[in-house]
This record gives sequence, structure tokens and C-alpha cells, in this order.
Amino acid sequence: MSQDADLAGTTSEASLARTRARSLEIEAAIETDASRFRVLTGDRPTGALHLGHYFGTLQNRVVLQNKGVETWVLVADYQVITDRDGVGEIRQRVLGLLADYLAAGIDPERSTIFNHSAVPGLNQLMLPFLSLVTESELHRNPTVKAELEASGGRAMSGLLLTYPVHQAADILFCKANIVPVGKDQVPHLEQARVIAQRFDKRYGRVEKDRPVFRRPEALLSEAQSVLGTDGTKMSKSRGNTIELGMDADTTAKILRRAVTDSNRHITYDPALRPEVSNLLLIASLCTGEAPEAIAERIGDGGGGALKAVVTEAVNEHFAPIRARRAELIADEGYLLDVLRRGNERANEVADQTLTEVRQAMQMIY
Amino acid sequence: MSQDADLAGTTSEASLARTRARSLEIEAAIETDASRFRVLTGDRPTGALHLGHYFGTLQNRVVLQNKGVETWVLVADYQVITDRDGVGEIRQRVLGLLADYLAAGIDPERSTIFNHSAVPGLNQLMLPFLSLVTESELHRNPTVKAELEASGGRAMSGLLLTYPVHQAADILFCKANIVPVGKDQVPHLEQARVIAQRFDKRYGRVEKDRPVFRRPEALLSEAQSVLGTDGTKMSKSRGNTIELGMDADTTAKILRRAVTDSNRHITYDPALRPEVSNLLLIASLCTGEAPEAIAERIGDGGGGALKAVVTEAVNEHFAPIRARRAELIADEGYLLDVLRRGNERANEVADQTLTEVRQAMQMIY
Repeated sequence: MSQDADLAGTTSEASLARTRARSLEIEAAIETDASRFRVLTGDRPTGALHLGHYFGTLQNRVVLQNKGVETWVLVADYQVITDRDGVGEIRQRVLGLLADYLAAGIDPERSTIFNHSAVPGLNQLMLPFLSLVTESELHRNPTVKAELEASGGRAMSGLLLTYPVHQAADILFCKANIVPVGKDQVPHLEQARVIAQRFDKRYGRVEKDRPVFRRPEALLSEAQSVLGTDGTKMSKSRGNTIELGMDADTTAKILRRAVTDSNRHITYDPALRPEVSNLLLIASLCTGEAPEAIAERIGDGGGGALKAVVTEAVNEHFAPIRARRAELIADEGYLLDVLRRGNERANEVADQTLTEVRQAMQMIY
Repeated sequence: MSQDADLAGTTSEASLARTRARSLEIEAAIETDASRFRVLTGDRPTGALHLGHYFGTLQNRVVLQNKGVETWVLVADYQVITDRDGVGEIRQRVLGLLADYLAAGIDPERSTIFNHSAVPGLNQLMLPFLSLVTESELHRNPTVKAELEASGGRAMSGLLLTYPVHQAADILFCKANIVPVGKDQVPHLEQARVIAQRFDKRYGRVEKDRPVFRRPEALLSEAQSVLGTDGTKMSKSRGNTIELGMDADTTAKILRRAVTDSNRHITYDPALRPEVSNLLLIASLCTGEAPEAIAERIGDGGGGALKAVVTEAVNEHFAPIRARRAELIADEGYLLDVLRRGNERANEVADQTLTEVRQAMQMIY
């Protein structure tokens, strides 16, 4: 019952406020001594990254890395099969994601990029961790609930049901202590925290004064959500998406079709003019200029002028990233080498963690 | 796998008859060419093996091994935590189980003895396999149902719920094609068969004419169940258990307390005289003489004479096994070496299987 309360509590306003306050403390601590922190982030390789990903998470990861936070980036290939029947063009998507990461500034010399299916030691953690959660907890998990709803009446797969436990393994195996999340994702971390704590209580420690697993904390992102060119969520199937790797002409073409409104006087008003304001936000994120200032400059120029400004801003900001991405995608050998080195490092750390897990569980023979 | 689960009603008589007929075919095929078969068996290291295990499964494993069937024996340490909170004296129990196996005739030069927690590649199979089963299937699984009932109102752990998938990984990772089972355990194999088939259908193959996983078949044991010395199921907590590793005096003491009945004329009549008949069966299994013949020899000697006969039969049959077990248990280094070599072999095979799995799933980067 206390679990119920805990989990429900994490979504409450009070808890969100606490997480927000704690995130500010963590951010301050990063400025003081970034070496105290290890961050775990990642994506499912289900398609090319777009501006929503870039401004929502990727840019912030690069900032954290450049501040000196040890950064682990997971290409979550086993998550591709939680809610679909096949793997699709998985290899191509993994390579595309790698190129997106590196082009955006993830530095493989400082950060570890790795993938699920290459790290058995990480996956083995599923077994002891599954012993620490009950079926009803898995059911109540907000991620599982949300994914099940989004799956449109599919039967729940065993992998979807146990997904929060696998995610806990992702975070805990490398002993990440911060996980960047949006405010909707704050509860996602709770299962990992609960598992870390229960492991300590049930199976004990290797060293008396240090639990095997650290309890990870949420680093709440204040990034504003970038929507698609029609003002709805960016989604490839809606054709409203600007991908990181798109060329300038395709970007221009998609922005020409963007939804605006009939008021030729451009203003930044997210509540009343969501489509126009989203375009202004994109331009603002690309140029660093406030969206209100951009709007004022466009004045009565209408949707056409707005689109031209946004197109230029996007194409200018992403030009060097896109050039680098094109080089990377043409050099498969290099991309594979980056992943291989990341996986080697991930396996080293996973095997080390697994040894501690075996020691704590007294399964050392 | 030795599972003590009551699966009454889950297997129809017709299906049992088919399995029985198929088992006879497999047994005939083993006589012709044992090299076509690979067997996976094993036990949870939760306590010392007793006569029920020995005559029910262990003896038959040794027979299969000696006929030339490639034998894999799993010390299922991760199964210890499916339905209990701690690991108990796990190391000591694993060493005891190893000594039991070797003393009974499992030959580490020909057979592979390994344990769950040492084989990450086996455990990783959980992930793709979990994508192939639905939550409702897991719930309907007779093992999960039975274990949950036996757990006396405990909340279902994630590990218990996904147990059939882990068991499928045990069987499939080493491509075992036969699994010895009692008739109550026939349905246990079904999940592994279904997973093998679905993997083939959904993720495809590496070689066109060969699925990645073989579909394992049940090898039905016709061994008669040996009960405890009070005529109920052998169970340490009931004090009715004769362990493989017990000394002759302790065996005699336990048999002196055995339950018989008031009829001094000893007859073999399992239906009407279960306790007396069970003792006769134990003597018969130890000496090879028919239980009816032993009964006739005892005649009107009563319970005392019966117990003396059984004690002598057990102590004589197990004397060499016990002597060898005592040597083994005193040589921890050797036992650990056997397990280490088994785990090396299991890891080789698991990594090889995992490579095929990655290839079939196109997760080769």
C-alpha cells in the first residue's frame, strides 16, 4: 500500500515541485563539480531524430557532456520490440541515430554510446530485479499503462509489462545518478529507485557503507516542447516533422506547408495562436532571439514571411550539423567503430556490476 | 526440470498418450543414435537431493548420459528467488548439489553442469523471448498458477510471472531437443516450444533451411514416485526424507521411525497399504529385486523386519555413492573447477546462440 502512495505521489504537484527544486540543486552541483554525476539517456531506434528530439533532449545532453558530466547514451534496440511485431529497418535506424548523436555533438571520446542487444550483463540484471517487483506494481506503472493505451488494443506483451524493470537495469547497471526527464516522465524513474532500494534491503551489499546500486534522481528539463509544423505532436506519419538530417530544400518544402492562421499580424501567443507561436519558438531556438522579438520584426508579413524566417533560421542553425551528419552517414565503418567501443566499455561496466550483484547475492562459486 | 507442481487436469489423457508414444520413439532413437539428442535437466539449489530425486530423475539422467546423449545439467540458482525473499545458504547448497550430481554418476567430462547466474547470454534471451508472449499467456501457464498457489498468498513476483520464459531460455539457449519430465510436467515444455516457433515466424532465420531454435520434446519418465518414510511427499520439513548424502546411521534412524501398519504380514499393495508398499518400492529400487518378492521374503516379519530390509538395501546401494560424495564435498576446489568449466562451456554456447539471435533479428551492427 505504501508503494501505491509513493507512486501516485510522484505525479502530484507537490512532488513535481520537489523534483523541480532538487533539479535546480543538481544543476548547481554540476557547475561546482560535474565529476560527481553520471547521466543515462537514450532513444529507441525507431526513426530519424527530429527538431522535437533535438531541442527537447539532445541539445541538453550535449550541454551536460560539455560541462563534464559522464554521459551514457543508450540505443535502446530491444525497446523497439516492446510494442511492435518486427524490428523494421533496425540496422539503418541505429546507424542513423548514431549519426544524429555525433553530428549534434555527442563526443564518443567522452561519452559512451551503446546498445541493449550487445550488453548481456545489463540484460541479466532483469532476473534479480524481477524478483524485487510484484505483478501489480508492473501493472500500475504509468509507462506501461500509457504504452498499452497507445498500442491500440494489442495484447500486452511480456516485454512491455516488464519494460520498467528493463529500464531500471539500463539506469542502474552503469550506476547513473541522474536521468534527464520531462515533467511527464518523473514517475518513470520511480521503479528504478524502488528496485535499487529493495536490492539493498533484500540482497545486501559488498561493501558495508555503500549499496550496490545508487538511487538515480530525475533532472527535470524545462525545455519547451517543439511541435510539428501543423501544431500537433511531431510524428513522421503526419508529415509535420523536420528531421535533423533533412536537407535545406526538404526543410523549406515542409515549412511551406506549415499551418498558420488568417491573421497576417504575427504575434507570439502560445495559448491563442499555437501554430504560429510554435513556428516562432522553432526560429527562436535556432537563433537565440526571443520569439516575441522575431514576431515583431515580421510584423504584418503574414504566414509567408514567418515561414521564410523559420526556414532560414532552421537551415542556418542546422547547416553544420547536417554537413557533419552527411559525412558520418557515409562512413559506416567509423559509426560502427564508435558503437563497438561504446559497447566494449558498457560490457566492462556491466560485468563489473554483475560481479557485485553476484557477490551481494552470494552467488559466487 | 524437477518441478513439484500439481498440474492435474491441465494435460488431457489424449495428449498424454501422444507424448507417451513419442517418448517411446525417442527412446528407441537414442538406442540407435544417441548423438542426435541433447538433453537439458536441472534442479533448484534449495536443499540436498533425496531418494525421491535420485530415483525420480537423477538416475535416469545418468543412464541417458551413459547412452551417449549430450547432457546439460542446470543448477538453477536464479529460480531460488522466484518465490522466496532471500537466497539462503546458496553457496553451500550449490556445492552440495554438485557433489550429489557427481557422486550419482554425472560425468563432468561428458556433461555440462552450469548455473544461471554465471551465463549472461542465456539470461539475455529473456528479452526477445518476452516480446513473443502475452501477459495472459503467462497467467494461464500451469507452472505459474501452481507455484502461485503453493506460495500461500504471496504477491506474484515479476520473476515468478515470467518464469516460463526464463525456463524456455534454459532449454533453447543450448538447443536441447529433449527434456525429461514426469507426466504432470508435460505442459511445462509447451511455452518453450511456442517461443521457438514464434521466434522463427517473427524474427526469421540465419540459415534458410534451419530455424534458430529447435523445438524441444518431452521425454516422459515412467519412474514410480518414491514417497517419504511416512507415505507422504518427501519434504525436509516433515523429517520423512532420506538424503543421498546421509550417513548409514542417520538413514537407519529415520527408517526406524517410518510409518507402517498393524498387519504383520508384509505385502506389496500400493493402493491399500501405501506406506508399507513405498518402503518395499525403495528396497526394490535399491536392490533390483521385485517389491513382491521382497515382501514374500519378509512374510510375517512385520514392520521391524521390513525396516531392517529397507535400511540394509538403501545403505548398501548408496554406500559407494556416499563415499564418493564425502570425498567430493571435502574437495571444494574440484567442485568449483567442475562448475567453472561447465560455465565456460555454457557461455560459449550461449554467446554463439546469442549471435544467431542477433543475426536473425538484424541487430548486428
